[in-house]
Amino acid sequence: MDYVYAPGKNHLFVPGPVNIPEPVIRAMNRNNEDYRSPAIPAMTKTLLEDVKKIFKTTTGTPFLFPTTGTGAWESALTNTLSPGDRIVSFLIGQFSLLWIDQQQRLKFNVDVVESEWGQGANLDILSEKLAADHSHTIKAICIVHNETATGVTNNLATVRKLLDHYRHPALLLVDGVSSICAIDFRMDEWGVDVALTGSQKALSLPTGIGIVCASPKALEASKSAKSVRVFFDWSDYLKFYKLGTYWPYTPSIQLLYGLRAALDLIFEEGLDNVIARHSRLGTATRLAVEAWGLKNCTQKEEWHSDTVTAVLVPPYIDSTEIVKRAWKRYNLSLGLGLNKVAGKVFRIGHLGNLNELQLLGCLAGVEMILKDVGYPVKLGSGVAAACAYLQNNIPMIPSRI
Amino acid sequence: MDYVYAPGKNHLFVPGPVNIPEPVIRAMNRNNEDYRSPAIPAMTKTLLEDVKKIFKTTTGTPFLFPTTGTGAWESALTNTLSPGDRIVSFLIGQFSLLWIDQQQRLKFNVDVVESEWGQGANLDILSEKLAADHSHTIKAICIVHNETATGVTNNLATVRKLLDHYRHPALLLVDGVSSICAIDFRMDEWGVDVALTGSQKALSLPTGIGIVCASPKALEASKSAKSVRVFFDWSDYLKFYKLGTYWPYTPSIQLLYGLRAALDLIFEEGLDNVIARHSRLGTATRLAVEAWGLKNCTQKEEWHSDTVTAVLVPPYIDSTEIVKRAWKRYNLSLGLGLNKVAGKVFRIGHLGNLNELQLLGCLAGVEMILKDVGYPVKLGSGVAAACAYLQNNIPMIPSRI
Amino acid sequence: MDYVYAPGKNHLFVPGPVNIPEPVIRAMNRNNEDYRSPAIPAMTKTLLEDVKKIFKTTTGTPFLFPTTGTGAWESALTNTLSPGDRIVSFLIGQFSLLWIDQQQRLKFNVDVVESEWGQGANLDILSEKLAADHSHTIKAICIVHNETATGVTNNLATVRKLLDHYRHPALLLVDGVSSICAIDFRMDEWGVDVALTGSQKALSLPTGIGIVCASPKALEASKSAKSVRVFFDWSDYLKFYKLGTYWPYTPSIQLLYGLRAALDLIFEEGLDNVIARHSRLGTATRLAVEAWGLKNCTQKEEWHSDTVTAVLVPPYIDSTEIVKRAWKRYNLSLGLGLNKVAGKVFRIGHLGNLNELQLLGCLAGVEMILKDVGYPVKLGSGVAAACAYLQNNIPMIPSRI
Amino acid sequence: MDYVYAPGKNHLFVPGPVNIPEPVIRAMNRNNEDYRSPAIPAMTKTLLEDVKKIFKTTTGTPFLFPTTGTGAWESALTNTLSPGDRIVSFLIGQFSLLWIDQQQRLKFNVDVVESEWGQGANLDILSEKLAADHSHTIKAICIVHNETATGVTNNLATVRKLLDHYRHPALLLVDGVSSICAIDFRMDEWGVDVALTGSQKALSLPTGIGIVCASPKALEASKSAKSVRVFFDWSDYLKFYKLGTYWPYTPSIQLLYGLRAALDLIFEEGLDNVIARHSRLGTATRLAVEAWGLKNCTQKEEWHSDTVTAVLVPPYIDSTEIVKRAWKRYNLSLGLGLNKVAGKVFRIGHLGNLNELQLLGCLAGVEMILKDVGYPVKLGSGVAAACAYLQNNIPMIPSRI
Repeated sequence: MDYVYAPGKNHLFVPGPVNIPEPVIRAMNRNNEDYRSPAIPAMTKTLLEDVKKIFKTTTGTPFLFPTTGTGAWESALTNTLSPGDRIVSFLIGQFSLLWIDQQQRLKFNVDVVESEWGQGANLDILSEKLAADHSHTIKAICIVHNETATGVTNNLATVRKLLDHYRHPALLLVDGVSSICAIDFRMDEWGVDVALTGSQKALSLPTGIGIVCASPKALEASKSAKSVRVFFDWSDYLKFYKLGTYWPYTPSIQLLYGLRAALDLIFEEGLDNVIARHSRLGTATRLAVEAWGLKNCTQKEEWHSDTVTAVLVPPYIDSTEIVKRAWKRYNLSLGLGLNKVAGKVFRIGHLGNLNELQLLGCLAGVEMILKDVGYPVKLGSGVAAACAYLQNNIPMIPSRI
Repeated sequence: MDYVYAPGKNHLFVPGPVNIPEPVIRAMNRNNEDYRSPAIPAMTKTLLEDVKKIFKTTTGTPFLFPTTGTGAWESALTNTLSPGDRIVSFLIGQFSLLWIDQQQRLKFNVDVVESEWGQGANLDILSEKLAADHSHTIKAICIVHNETATGVTNNLATVRKLLDHYRHPALLLVDGVSSICAIDFRMDEWGVDVALTGSQKALSLPTGIGIVCASPKALEASKSAKSVRVFFDWSDYLKFYKLGTYWPYTPSIQLLYGLRAALDLIFEEGLDNVIARHSRLGTATRLAVEAWGLKNCTQKEEWHSDTVTAVLVPPYIDSTEIVKRAWKRYNLSLGLGLNKVAGKVFRIGHLGNLNELQLLGCLAGVEMILKDVGYPVKLGSGVAAACAYLQNNIPMIPSRI
Repeated sequence: MDYVYAPGKNHLFVPGPVNIPEPVIRAMNRNNEDYRSPAIPAMTKTLLEDVKKIFKTTTGTPFLFPTTGTGAWESALTNTLSPGDRIVSFLIGQFSLLWIDQQQRLKFNVDVVESEWGQGANLDILSEKLAADHSHTIKAICIVHNETATGVTNNLATVRKLLDHYRHPALLLVDGVSSICAIDFRMDEWGVDVALTGSQKALSLPTGIGIVCASPKALEASKSAKSVRVFFDWSDYLKFYKLGTYWPYTPSIQLLYGLRAALDLIFEEGLDNVIARHSRLGTATRLAVEAWGLKNCTQKEEWHSDTVTAVLVPPYIDSTEIVKRAWKRYNLSLGLGLNKVAGKVFRIGHLGNLNELQLLGCLAGVEMILKDVGYPVKLGSGVAAACAYLQNNIPMIPSRI
Repeated sequence: MDYVYAPGKNHLFVPGPVNIPEPVIRAMNRNNEDYRSPAIPAMTKTLLEDVKKIFKTTTGTPFLFPTTGTGAWESALTNTLSPGDRIVSFLIGQFSLLWIDQQQRLKFNVDVVESEWGQGANLDILSEKLAADHSHTIKAICIVHNETATGVTNNLATVRKLLDHYRHPALLLVDGVSSICAIDFRMDEWGVDVALTGSQKALSLPTGIGIVCASPKALEASKSAKSVRVFFDWSDYLKFYKLGTYWPYTPSIQLLYGLRAALDLIFEEGLDNVIARHSRLGTATRLAVEAWGLKNCTQKEEWHSDTVTAVLVPPYIDSTEIVKRAWKRYNLSLGLGLNKVAGKVFRIGHLGNLNELQLLGCLAGVEMILKDVGYPVKLGSGVAAACAYLQNNIPMIPSRI
């Protein structure tokens, strides 16, 4: 493993997987257990109850699949839709692109609404499509809450408003992979039918749990959905929920204990405080980018993401070189530009269990790297801008006052 | 978590998930990392190369899916077959039953060959079916190498011989979940087309990696297989293998380091020594069962499993009570009897990173429990039988001589 | 580290350091912290309060020295005595011998009362000495509660009775290294003036905390004790206790959290239940030894130790060979015979966080080793005897009923 | 433990205990072992050999005491000196003060050479004393290499030169607690007779090993030194070194494995690179302090410490408030001003396994705190100054090029 050794902490600022808090690492530091003993179902029960809180739902039914976000996508789609179903899906960056690719390969009839990368979902077009769809051929709207490739947050409340306005029965399926537990998300209030996230994002766990939450309407839809599915089928889980044994197949013991600890930490901090902290980190990052004289890939403030900032570099700089250098010289892990924005943006992930001084160290590092690659940054400028904001806005740590 | 505390080690003798060796727990005790840095692909490359050794293949292509054995099943089937394809599948216990259920729900035309639980796959019927199948309507043979519910090991070499004898082109898909890394398995020699296992079995890791290994013939078949698949699709992996970045979506960093450590330990002990150790533990367990005057659920010696022993209890005893009592009084985790053998058998899993004295502690515990529930066992008799065999057969630990 | 790898768990049955429970290993799996932050004193306060419970004292003052048992000895002596002071000390095995060696090198006038190894402290001689000591030249009685080398437990209640009978003011200094938290110990009731133990014994932690508990009388004595001391001086600790910062120099953060977890586990099980469990394990071990036809080094039942059993081997066997073989062939760690009993005894430590099935695995291993070295043991006999007793006496695990 | 929870990493910048690297935490994440098995002596042998490298000695004999720096002090003194011996000792801050207090309580005749706090040892006075000491009444010179309370590094080469110049046979005893492994230290070249450090400092381990290294001359002196000692006696260790079992009493298994890992990391980075990294971090910190318009407690550049910077605050600010606020608002742990400089300085520890971006995060935090407490700092100024230097001086990480 010598290949990667470098002194000090790795500064992990990719938008996932993110830093795991020490208490969670500790909770997972354990041997396997029999998942059929009374202990694991007892714990699972609390997990299912508590995980609903991070979706802000009381009526939803959560599933903890031993999978990734990609698997969670598949579970959301195959349990609610049948091959050939028309769905409206928004393409605004690499991750929405990949989801659409999955939707197409799963044989749905995907009505793609594309935006320029850096813009949010085009809801005007959605409005038009809903208005025109008198016969309700649209079975679902698929939308990422936060596009991780460009740092764009979509307005889900507006989507719901449009559906309500047109009294359209389409299901609303939301990829909350890089938003849930970090950006305000309200499953019940916004009438989201399936929401999903992955453990390695704002929950700050290792990869391995794809969390899917289904509304009563989605559960109803699953009864008639014809897509072929077994591993990702909700019905097996529902059967074992009823039995009180919860697991149709073997879960990861370690991740269950880790999830328990992660939820405990989130509730101890307070979910709203967690979201406020992400807002603070996002704002500080954007202020630094501005101070550096660089542009945010996100074109309008309304779409600014509090979990990831994609920074546009001048044409004479290759953003890939920035990411490489960050890792090779500063033990800093930044996100690459992907696909259409490859070489043009680098990304700073600021989600999960992270505090302000960690971010400031990252920002200082980015400044030095920018200088390394020939961009005429004023060293300290971004940090100064971020500090000026943070010094006025960081609250005292409640448990330490 | 108070609900489960008990002094001392939990004696984990379910047939999975199994005991994780301390060096592997240590290797996984870590923060997340950027899986797009040069470090993770460099390590992944060694994993893919080394994991082939535990399948005894040089020509196979392995896939490390972030899933369980159930997901690995699905990957094996959907990548090689098309809906409606005829497959011959052997029902000999709960896990082959579940696989068959999956096969049916995935819309294959499953030709089920059922045996009494406790017997191996009926290869005579396979022979008949192959003999009759002049037009090669059978696209695949699906067989569990080791049925975990009954402790039955099937003879794969014979299956291959039959296929060769009839020059039948059917794919051979093998569930090696509770055999690979513990019971002799020879992918290349036996012409297995897809073999699969799960990380939480003999590899002695947490749940979370479904390892699937495909022969060149299986890879070829995947090009025309029409089953719908995305998350479990081999083609995405193959694309990223070519790019040298390896991962179409986020893997578990912790499990990759854990797998590295697990493989290192297996190679340090020597795969053949690992298999010999399992044979020793299996034999010792069977001798104990015999000494107790109980019957093995496995009806013939040729099917005896070296990874799990299902013990039949007399009709006046409920085996579920044995398992409950083991956990509640002795901190011992045994396997329940499942489905048809519920209440009739309890199971001792003796696979993974386990040594003789651990097993003897378990056997002593089982003796006391048998007495607890009213079976007239002679205390010490099973341990005595096991010790008599082991004392003659345990080798010196090579690294300590 | 390859030198030691062996599959499965190491069976750790030396009488210290002992097995650490998983929750304690987890609690210690952490980075350093500033021990001058408010957090560490807050935790230390609970530790000092709770550690008194394992000494069964309400009036004692505990000290958590970053040292071993040997250092705790030194602290007990140098804080209460002056060079030249006459002390009565009992030599009954290797650890009392080492303590006496320390007492002599610290320049005390040691009045050694020797017993044959395998016997307890000769309290008749103590009685005589106290009776004769009208001028109270004896300043302290030094006694090991449990002699780890021979498995002998001394009767401290009788020592107190004698002191009371003769109204003798000598301090009573007790080495409880291999007894406290495992064998009934009553500091206040028995009028013990200094009691001490080490973290790696029945508390089931790593080595590194020497716990010393001083009675009010001992504290008073420390004010005039002339022995030179700094690191082990109580007065520095007392000063920092008053300040509420607790630590005159840097403690181990990890061990403090570990101690917190260890105490929590002990209180969860119940200290009396912990002691009962040790009694059960001690009895089971002695029954096995008897069944093997071997003798306990401890010559009378009244001295039998519930934390360690020293087993005498026949003259034609070298007990060192048994210990070597245990480690090399069975991954079992047994204790050597020391000094006078080298080659003549091997020791089974049965203290700390241990349960019955672990012990039974060890006993089965010992049987095979005995056979290996040519002793005509009946395999299974010891386990049978132990099981017969245990099956009648193990209680249900309270948290699992 | 809720009392201390705060999101994200704790920023640990006290001058010890310091951040433990993840590989070292992993190495220590283990159960106890029998330290009398062949494994521990085999590892200990490598530790003793390798630990000499961090002292830059080939002729020294190291001892790994289960203790702290305070205990290591005591071991150095009591093994080489007799009560009443005259020693010259330099008082330049809180830690040299504490050592002198120990020297006096151990009954040496301490000739204290005091400097103003913020200055180094007064070597002119040493020169005078040596010149005057024709009869060699001075038995030892005691000096801290780096005074942790004020951030002052003494010039040991000059001390040696003076001793050589006057051909004075006094022993040279050096406290290297906050220097060894971070600041250039050359035991053999500088003729140091006893050097010592603690595991929780630049070695980046938990507290618990006091490492003492003795020159042949010191070993010789120990034969006639009359100070009473047992726990800290070198002779017991030397006896066990000869036996090849190494340990007179129980070591911490976890710390031994941790030390092995810590040394491996240091050698992988290269000891000279480790020292250069500390120089870089020290320089960057001092540049930031200068940019903030604050003074370093250290009065001359020649004494500047590369492991800790004590920052003087203006009289209208209480430095204790800075430290409190750092912890309560920013999850940043800074060092308090001690004793004479209490309230006047706060300390930034920059030693151990630490990298530049970690330090920059700390510096940004300090800027905000300075503003919090009313000091008119220009936000970003210190970070800018540090970055300007670092961006020109950080090398590429060798293992990642």
